[in-house]
Amino acid sequence: MPEFLKLSTPQEAINILLHTLQERKPNFETISTILAMGRVIGKKVLAPHPLPEFPRSTVDGYALRARETFGASESLPGYLNLVGEIPMGAMPSFNINLGSCALIHTGGMLPQGADAVIMLEYTQRVEHSLPVRGGLNGSSAVEIEISHAVAEGENTLRIGEDVKKDQVVIQAGTRIRTLEIGSCMALGILELRVVKKPKIGILSTGNEVISPMANPLPGQIRDVNSYSLAALVSQAGGEPILYGIFPDDFHTLEEIAKEALKQCDMVLITAGSSASAHDLTSKVITSLGTPGVLVHGVNVRPGKPTILAVCQEKAVIGMPGNPVSALIIAGLFVVPVIEKLLGALPKPKPMVRAKLTVNVPSQAGREDWVAVKLEANKEILADHTGTSFLARPIFAKSNFIFSLSLADGLIRIPPETTGMNAGEDVEVNLF
Amino acid sequence: MPEFLKLSTPQEAINILLHTLQERKPNFETISTILAMGRVIGKKVLAPHPLPEFPRSTVDGYALRARETFGASESLPGYLNLVGEIPMGAMPSFNINLGSCALIHTGGMLPQGADAVIMLEYTQRVEHSLPVRGGLNGSSAVEIEISHAVAEGENTLRIGEDVKKDQVVIQAGTRIRTLEIGSCMALGILELRVVKKPKIGILSTGNEVISPMANPLPGQIRDVNSYSLAALVSQAGGEPILYGIFPDDFHTLEEIAKEALKQCDMVLITAGSSASAHDLTSKVITSLGTPGVLVHGVNVRPGKPTILAVCQEKAVIGMPGNPVSALIIAGLFVVPVIEKLLGALPKPKPMVRAKLTVNVPSQAGREDWVAVKLEANKEILADHTGTSFLARPIFAKSNFIFSLSLADGLIRIPPETTGMNAGEDVEVNLF
Repeated sequence: MPEFLKLSTPQEAINILLHTLQERKPNFETISTILAMGRVIGKKVLAPHPLPEFPRSTVDGYALRARETFGASESLPGYLNLVGEIPMGAMPSFNINLGSCALIHTGGMLPQGADAVIMLEYTQRVEHSLPVRGGLNGSSAVEIEISHAVAEGENTLRIGEDVKKDQVVIQAGTRIRTLEIGSCMALGILELRVVKKPKIGILSTGNEVISPMANPLPGQIRDVNSYSLAALVSQAGGEPILYGIFPDDFHTLEEIAKEALKQCDMVLITAGSSASAHDLTSKVITSLGTPGVLVHGVNVRPGKPTILAVCQEKAVIGMPGNPVSALIIAGLFVVPVIEKLLGALPKPKPMVRAKLTVNVPSQAGREDWVAVKLEANKEILADHTGTSFLARPIFAKSNFIFSLSLADGLIRIPPETTGMNAGEDVEVNLF
Repeated sequence: MPEFLKLSTPQEAINILLHTLQERKPNFETISTILAMGRVIGKKVLAPHPLPEFPRSTVDGYALRARETFGASESLPGYLNLVGEIPMGAMPSFNINLGSCALIHTGGMLPQGADAVIMLEYTQRVEHSLPVRGGLNGSSAVEIEISHAVAEGENTLRIGEDVKKDQVVIQAGTRIRTLEIGSCMALGILELRVVKKPKIGILSTGNEVISPMANPLPGQIRDVNSYSLAALVSQAGGEPILYGIFPDDFHTLEEIAKEALKQCDMVLITAGSSASAHDLTSKVITSLGTPGVLVHGVNVRPGKPTILAVCQEKAVIGMPGNPVSALIIAGLFVVPVIEKLLGALPKPKPMVRAKLTVNVPSQAGREDWVAVKLEANKEILADHTGTSFLARPIFAKSNFIFSLSLADGLIRIPPETTGMNAGEDVEVNLF
């Protein structure tokens, strides 16, 4: 029998799914900071001490008392005695008294008594022999000519000016980037408490599906979805757990799906592509617990025969069997669930802006995802709009994973339109 | 002495660097396909066999001879005898002869004699008892009513329609995505020849710099750049090799830099932040071989005191000591070199489009990178331009890695402008 589905829009569908999923306390683990790229911070990180920990110069110049430069100019310079050079990486061994200054390098520690630094560019070194009081031998002295005034604190960092002690340096839910790794190192934070990767169980079903390691007989095909979905799950921050390939048999599937639901935080069942296999998936999901199936069929192309469910407070998704549809549906529904399980703060998705090369018709009410190849748009490369790419749709039967792998990304044709016109600006979601 | 640099634009600088670097034959290694996400394919991958390997149905329906449906319509349907159901995953045990059809599921193998499939939606099952010739007992027979014509090949995939034997399925230089992992699995390609990760040596210098594991004394700071650059190098597809922290001493640095240059494909030296440390780096790089320093100072903020060199056919980069500058300079110069070493095909960089909240002045001739925080733009969320974010610049002293970690990304103020205006559309390069 043909199957008639009541279809939700993708937006409605993901809202229902995320809303039904209870907020769950994530599990944490402690890992080395240098291995934490892309991981999500579980508990906010506080600064164990201020930064900088000592007053520092931000330029190469002379440490001095700002007041003594007031009024200094090129036509009326001031003069200060040079009392020494501040070594990098050590505390200065002298103070700055009235009438004196010291050579300091960027990052050097400000000596006691100094409250500002003048840049080298505004100074001249003046060397001259002075008769020394008391009739002793004359000794050489160095003065620094100051041709510019500096304000108190100028060209310096105060203690705690970058970060104060106990200040929150990383919020819970932050995904660790290069910047956070650097910040933690600056503070000596060598380990981080991160959210454990949620376990995402993946079951492949279908009498025709065999392992990629095997040689298919006529009528058989190799399992694609377990592996492409595993890669996508890892990319999103989850830990894929592959349960293998199972025949289209209710009891076998029910048993393994129950096991997977017990062990994992979410379960994906990639159904065979036939309507009967799809019905079987739906029955198996229903057997896993309440509230069960929330959405059966989504008004999206490709990916219509998608089942979204929550069983025993965990998301269970019946994925379309077609490899291309499965990846698109995973992007729409699996990734947001993983992000919720991780407690990750929302982050905008970067896109490539391009101009559509041809008209793309679509059906009103349905959201379409169309694969496109990006090409350099030589005509408007110098244009100030920054739109320097063309998006050329790849029209192929949706089963064709190889045709799709020519594509750079997907464009979304919103449900409220009947298509998009050649020349329109589109945002391309890179694979 | 103050240092006066002849400054190149970042675009000139990267062009000189990439142009001077010889094309080098990359090294390959063979790895498991399922571990290949993000790796770069070394040699083009050919299909060992066609896909599909057998003619398949793309719908649930009845396999038949297309000619026999010609002229069929709802008002004048045709009738075919149902001879059986084609099992999933096996070769059909019967042929389709004139006047007959067989139930087939999506992905099922087309039986001999059939050349098309009609969708279930255009059929009705008609069951009736027929008197059997020869006066034996009547037996039940099933006919399928066909209310729609199908063309030859309709709703089927021919052998090799997705990919032909020996067709290139992945080009050399492709970065492996979920799609390629799926494609390889479909073809039973379990291992891939990928480009070895180029080794990027990282040396930290500065008398004031200590290990993040140590507790700084007054005047000392922890090494940030080794670790944030290592994370960035890994992200770009390189293998970071940390040589540690060295004092500002020419002979020590020369020795370790020579060693690093021998062992690695590129060397990054993060200098102390002072002018003298910077000069020292320049001298050390000059001692490493010809042609030596190509660019000394780039007209970019932050990151001006950058040194680009090629020594013994390898890139050597003197990075600014400031952690924020170092990351920005690494994005501009280190990432493109890693991509060249990998032989990766060029790929557009995805961005988030946003509206600038305030005027950002800049100096003509200089390229500025300004950190921004993205905020939801509630006013134009429903706007069709798709610009639903505001970009709010974070103005902080450039040394402040913590202020920067509040930012979501960077915007580029091009050298040919004197700034950008509030309300202008900008492309945000996420960290």
